[in-house]
Amino acid sequence: MSKIKAAMVGGGIGGFIGEIHRMAMRLDARYELVAGAFSSDPKRSIESAEQLGIKGYETWQELFEKEKDNIKCIVIVTPNESHAEIATKALESGFHVMLDKPMTRTLDEAIALEKIASSSEMHVGLTYTYTGYPMIREMRQRILAGDIGEVRTVSVDYRQGWLAQPIEQEGQKQAAWRTDPKRSGAGALGDIGSHAEQLARFTTGLGITAVRGDVHTVVEGRKVDDHACVQLKMEKSAIGDLVCSQVCTGERNHVSIRVWGDKGSFSWDHDSCDQLKFSSPDGTETILHCESNRAPSGHPAGFIEAFANLYVDFADRILGADVQLIDETEGLLSMRFIDAVMRSQVSKTWSAV
Amino acid sequence: MSKIKAAMVGGGIGGFIGEIHRMAMRLDARYELVAGAFSSDPKRSIESAEQLGIKGYETWQELFEKEKDNIKCIVIVTPNESHAEIATKALESGFHVMLDKPMTRTLDEAIALEKIASSSEMHVGLTYTYTGYPMIREMRQRILAGDIGEVRTVSVDYRQGWLAQPIEQEGQKQAAWRTDPKRSGAGALGDIGSHAEQLARFTTGLGITAVRGDVHTVVEGRKVDDHACVQLKMEKSAIGDLVCSQVCTGERNHVSIRVWGDKGSFSWDHDSCDQLKFSSPDGTETILHCESNRAPSGHPAGFIEAFANLYVDFADRILGADVQLIDETEGLLSMRFIDAVMRSQVSKTWSAV
Amino acid sequence: MSKIKAAMVGGGIGGFIGEIHRMAMRLDARYELVAGAFSSDPKRSIESAEQLGIKGYETWQELFEKEKDNIKCIVIVTPNESHAEIATKALESGFHVMLDKPMTRTLDEAIALEKIASSSEMHVGLTYTYTGYPMIREMRQRILAGDIGEVRTVSVDYRQGWLAQPIEQEGQKQAAWRTDPKRSGAGALGDIGSHAEQLARFTTGLGITAVRGDVHTVVEGRKVDDHACVQLKMEKSAIGDLVCSQVCTGERNHVSIRVWGDKGSFSWDHDSCDQLKFSSPDGTETILHCESNRAPSGHPAGFIEAFANLYVDFADRILGADVQLIDETEGLLSMRFIDAVMRSQVSKTWSAV
Amino acid sequence: MSKIKAAMVGGGIGGFIGEIHRMAMRLDARYELVAGAFSSDPKRSIESAEQLGIKGYETWQELFEKEKDNIKCIVIVTPNESHAEIATKALESGFHVMLDKPMTRTLDEAIALEKIASSSEMHVGLTYTYTGYPMIREMRQRILAGDIGEVRTVSVDYRQGWLAQPIEQEGQKQAAWRTDPKRSGAGALGDIGSHAEQLARFTTGLGITAVRGDVHTVVEGRKVDDHACVQLKMEKSAIGDLVCSQVCTGERNHVSIRVWGDKGSFSWDHDSCDQLKFSSPDGTETILHCESNRAPSGHPAGFIEAFANLYVDFADRILGADVQLIDETEGLLSMRFIDAVMRSQVSKTWSAV
Repeated sequence: MSKIKAAMVGGGIGGFIGEIHRMAMRLDARYELVAGAFSSDPKRSIESAEQLGIKGYETWQELFEKEKDNIKCIVIVTPNESHAEIATKALESGFHVMLDKPMTRTLDEAIALEKIASSSEMHVGLTYTYTGYPMIREMRQRILAGDIGEVRTVSVDYRQGWLAQPIEQEGQKQAAWRTDPKRSGAGALGDIGSHAEQLARFTTGLGITAVRGDVHTVVEGRKVDDHACVQLKMEKSAIGDLVCSQVCTGERNHVSIRVWGDKGSFSWDHDSCDQLKFSSPDGTETILHCESNRAPSGHPAGFIEAFANLYVDFADRILGADVQLIDETEGLLSMRFIDAVMRSQVSKTWSAV
Repeated sequence: MSKIKAAMVGGGIGGFIGEIHRMAMRLDARYELVAGAFSSDPKRSIESAEQLGIKGYETWQELFEKEKDNIKCIVIVTPNESHAEIATKALESGFHVMLDKPMTRTLDEAIALEKIASSSEMHVGLTYTYTGYPMIREMRQRILAGDIGEVRTVSVDYRQGWLAQPIEQEGQKQAAWRTDPKRSGAGALGDIGSHAEQLARFTTGLGITAVRGDVHTVVEGRKVDDHACVQLKMEKSAIGDLVCSQVCTGERNHVSIRVWGDKGSFSWDHDSCDQLKFSSPDGTETILHCESNRAPSGHPAGFIEAFANLYVDFADRILGADVQLIDETEGLLSMRFIDAVMRSQVSKTWSAV
Repeated sequence: MSKIKAAMVGGGIGGFIGEIHRMAMRLDARYELVAGAFSSDPKRSIESAEQLGIKGYETWQELFEKEKDNIKCIVIVTPNESHAEIATKALESGFHVMLDKPMTRTLDEAIALEKIASSSEMHVGLTYTYTGYPMIREMRQRILAGDIGEVRTVSVDYRQGWLAQPIEQEGQKQAAWRTDPKRSGAGALGDIGSHAEQLARFTTGLGITAVRGDVHTVVEGRKVDDHACVQLKMEKSAIGDLVCSQVCTGERNHVSIRVWGDKGSFSWDHDSCDQLKFSSPDGTETILHCESNRAPSGHPAGFIEAFANLYVDFADRILGADVQLIDETEGLLSMRFIDAVMRSQVSKTWSAV
Repeated sequence: MSKIKAAMVGGGIGGFIGEIHRMAMRLDARYELVAGAFSSDPKRSIESAEQLGIKGYETWQELFEKEKDNIKCIVIVTPNESHAEIATKALESGFHVMLDKPMTRTLDEAIALEKIASSSEMHVGLTYTYTGYPMIREMRQRILAGDIGEVRTVSVDYRQGWLAQPIEQEGQKQAAWRTDPKRSGAGALGDIGSHAEQLARFTTGLGITAVRGDVHTVVEGRKVDDHACVQLKMEKSAIGDLVCSQVCTGERNHVSIRVWGDKGSFSWDHDSCDQLKFSSPDGTETILHCESNRAPSGHPAGFIEAFANLYVDFADRILGADVQLIDETEGLLSMRFIDAVMRSQVSKTWSAV
């Protein structure tokens, strides 16, 4: 199978997210990363490219122009503020686009980008990592197949502790841009609440119709939200509760989702990502294990494999297969969710999504 | 040590709750159950007493009169509707009172009973079971001692599945009275939400100042709430989320509480009740194990032992020791919480507790 | 139901084992403990009785004589050295006997006692605690019913750390008698290896035919074994491995048993004693939960409840029911196992049991 | 950093092990796989190469000759029977060698290969996967640093169920060569017992001096061992127990290692490979979490990452760094262990390793 030629914008050596995308692209040998504009600093961009042994450009504009006929897809891993502009230009240049989530910084940008993307022949994929975990996909498939009957309630819990102290005020770079509303948009809601919201919809196949969020900035002096508890109304009378927090001291990256229907329930925890637990009405639990396509039974897989699954799907879609992507429509829904939560915070009551 | 003579009202043979109180009373040999009015049906009361080999009365009124000089305390395990009347009369008769939670059916009853109890010389104890678990007490003690710094956020999750179907409409007796607002008051909120609320306050030492509840009756035709998600504002700027549900299919009796401070966090799960997990800021977890005073290290204890701990405390208090009880003040706070949640459900926004 | 009158030999206030038997007897109200000879020291015996509020005797001989017509059963919780003599005399006096395990100090004593007991009309029960856990009983029942097909291999792991240091040389009383060969017989093998061996046979229904033990005294200066790994040959070509150790630093009381058949396997761990795990050939696991007869679904039970189950069975047997007891036959098999392991240690090869 | 040019012998498309090596090599971009002799069947070799988009050879001999000046290292993933010949020739041709474990089919071959390798300037690495897990390395480092004091006892448990039925007689290819003594040498002992043995030595830094194995062929008609329980004597008076089995129905790939010292203990389980548990003498447990160098805190890693770690080390060693490899010396020790176990099976008593 010939590899898909790709270029990257953002993600220079030193940050972590660029290398994760590159590992995910390499794992299954479906892509050939041939060029990059790895930084808004031209010098750093060229240096990163040199270290990677590929062609570097000083700006993404130059890259787009020069590589138009050579590459098929662009991977965008810049801070949220520039997503809309770069992705729009990439689509217009005829590239498929893999975009780090959330889709954009603001809802307006998202609406505009979705319009462009949905009328383009190019594909947009968003790296909502958790949708790449095999047992999350298994959960979705089984719920859609009716294994737990009608979905009644959903609970998603995403808690981190890395922003429990004001480290952005002490020069931590990751923290700095993620807590800067001009660069990231929302705080915890955008960074991890968007994952949680996606999980709730992806596993159940149900949309979120209204929200009532209790949104906080726990750490003094922080400019964005860092903790939120959101009550959810979903389609078909389902209800839910969602918590996202980056100030839960001691949490490394706790993600869990539980879905109860009238005939049973499913539960998944990131810490044991290869397992899916089903509970039957009598309380008996069944632990389903992931059978990886990459290793023999009983060999744990993890985050990079899940990330790589998204890239496999994207490659298949580019090649014309009818696989499901978390695409611009999904990305826009996520942005609408964040916006509705923020509106509900102001009104102190329910907001439609 | 001489045993404290006690009598029971309600809890006849056949139901489960009476026998649990009796096992808890027997375990540590601190009580002698000498009499009972075990049912509102005089015949069933006498039969239960006979089976237990103790003195039976046709009514609790008769019991109170005849046993006035013989017994020291009354255990009340009737449905919520009669708590207020029986407890009031017991206190007036000079008995100490151990009362199954919640304290009463209505807030008004609770306010009245609290007034009487707090001006009485007799003691009132409420069997908020979870406060009897050693590792819940350990959590409280360590949080009050500052082990996790300032409390920031609390999450309590109490989910059962036994009311996932309308079994009260099919003649299940437990379900029948618990879903009858005239007998129980609230539904899931009163039955298990009250435990969850108590846990949030007990472990942190912080009061709940305002709530915003999303309360549902998921099962069609049911007359009380069976699912609620409640956002909490607590003292000292702490915040919380609390879910109680009796319609989560497949959940046997899932109770967990997690508390995050600015210096660490604690987490406890009913399924592994002998453990308490501490997470330090760097994510390292420490599992503390319960050292039971009843068995050697490493021998699991459970629900009955926790329940018995409440009875040991109550005995000590009757004998004059300065031990902490979940008493009428706590019981009233629980009732105020339920009331506030129901008010917030109507107003769709925050209610003060 | 009228209670069975019982007396206790050994188990005075201050030690732990007597009180455990008493709690187990009280829990289900099937016994009335009316008298005791609680210590070989007459004064301590009388003091213990006084504290318990029952009749005390200076010697068990006197107790047996005076209570002959009053009580039905004797509970023997003395150190192993006196088991044989007291149990023999109790049976001859017409008492049923509940005996702490192991049955005796030496194999010869066990052979003699078994002969007497099996020809007596009185019942002998041995408190092999683990056989009282509901999920161990469930495992046995399911294996005998063929749920995992033919049993192929068994693994039992019983590790404690409390004797990791030479605490018997520093005056710890429990440690002192348990590591004194004149009082206990074997060390770890007798104290906990006997539990492990019983579990292997109880759950599978298969006898142990030969053993090859690697027996160690890890702590310098200790007079008995404190660690052993034993390879097992069992009936019907099954094989097994068994480890018992009291010097595994950090282990509180780790007990696990796993049994694999040709159609599936079961696994049980003391730390989650209310669960039984079944693994099907494809690796899917099913977690079965204990439904206690003492509490509603989802309320954990533990060690004392398991212990109490043995006493319930014993009461039922005394009253004529055909329930299974771990009796003198089982007790003797345990002693034969220990003897065979010690012989194999000398010969460095297999010994028949 | 320029990539190390490599070629592969064996591991054609269709089997699983070749692709695992290739994923591990790709993950960190330290290697460029430029050629291969992927099968003993010349046609299949060429086809595999074509699918991978690299140069294919009909025989490894031809590959060695033609690529002598181009590539630096050879990855050998053939069945065990040909390891010795190919590795010997590769070293003599001036290639570094990465060799799938076990080192060879027979002990004699291993002795000869070790001699050649140790006098060669080329490096040999063996893919003992479990030594690539970060928390296994953490365990080793902490034990060597004295965190648990003197090592007393080790327990390794490696159980699979995939050979629980005679699938080799039904044409399963993996099973066919692994149960053919002419191709694999030993059965379960060689395939997974060798991993277990390596873990015992790697984590403790202690050699195994004597063994007593109870080795079985559980499945009728099978030509190699499929289950073994081995008692171990180790350096510095440490002792151990090791079980390896491929007939434990329901086990996917259960690997656990526990090490107890006189000051604490460590425990690791493959199913939660990112965790390492430390138990202190008082029974308190500490869960240490892996901080991956590939992803942010709290993102699970797995088997492929562990495998890739071995390739990173190998690359570093080739480039002159002083990193630890599981090399020919270790590979030979593993073969000596298997040989000693088989000898002990015949003598029914201890064998020196």
